[in-house]
Amino acid sequence: MIRHIVAFKLAADDAGTRAAQAAEAGSRLEALVGVVPTLRAMSAGANALDLPGNWDLALVADFDDAAGLDAYQVHPAHEEVAAFIGAIRSDRMAVDLEI
Amino acid sequence: MIRHIVAFKLAADDAGTRAAQAAEAGSRLEALVGVVPTLRAMSAGANALDLPGNWDLALVADFDDAAGLDAYQVHPAHEEVAAFIGAIRSDRMAVDLEI
Repeated sequence: MIRHIVAFKLAADDAGTRAAQAAEAGSRLEALVGVVPTLRAMSAGANALDLPGNWDLALVADFDDAAGLDAYQVHPAHEEVAAFIGAIRSDRMAVDLEI
Repeated sequence: MIRHIVAFKLAADDAGTRAAQAAEAGSRLEALVGVVPTLRAMSAGANALDLPGNWDLALVADFDDAAGLDAYQVHPAHEEVAAFIGAIRSDRMAVDLEI
């Protein structure tokens, strides 16, 4: 199984704006379960603890294999959420674990 | 529940060295389950897919609450792994989700 971990810094100067945008993005990402057939599980949302070095938004998504992740990346419902995040983010990182 | 997501870039120039160090760190992190009482679940390891922008190492750790995360942070077994990672990393980010 592939565990796809992604995190974002958001561009807005105001912390409240970033938190609201991250919560919106998290809700949209979790709504992809049942819509993107290869997506087995998703937890996503705004950073909830005010700790030094924490970024604004993260997702943890599980797929049976790398082909399932590829299918998710190009699914129209995911592309719509990715475009929303792409418009508000200032930085992105990802790690894909084999679990 | 708190889902604690952390990722690292490692400092070594050589990709094979970074992958071996990340695998070692992942094994040490997963071995904390059953040792740190407040740690409910841990998946950790080296990045497994060669995708642009991917970092080297990540962990996803679950706790009942923020107090459980705090207890993990100062547990000697975690501090030992954190010191190992601290000596090989060049960058770190974290996001804590309320799930």
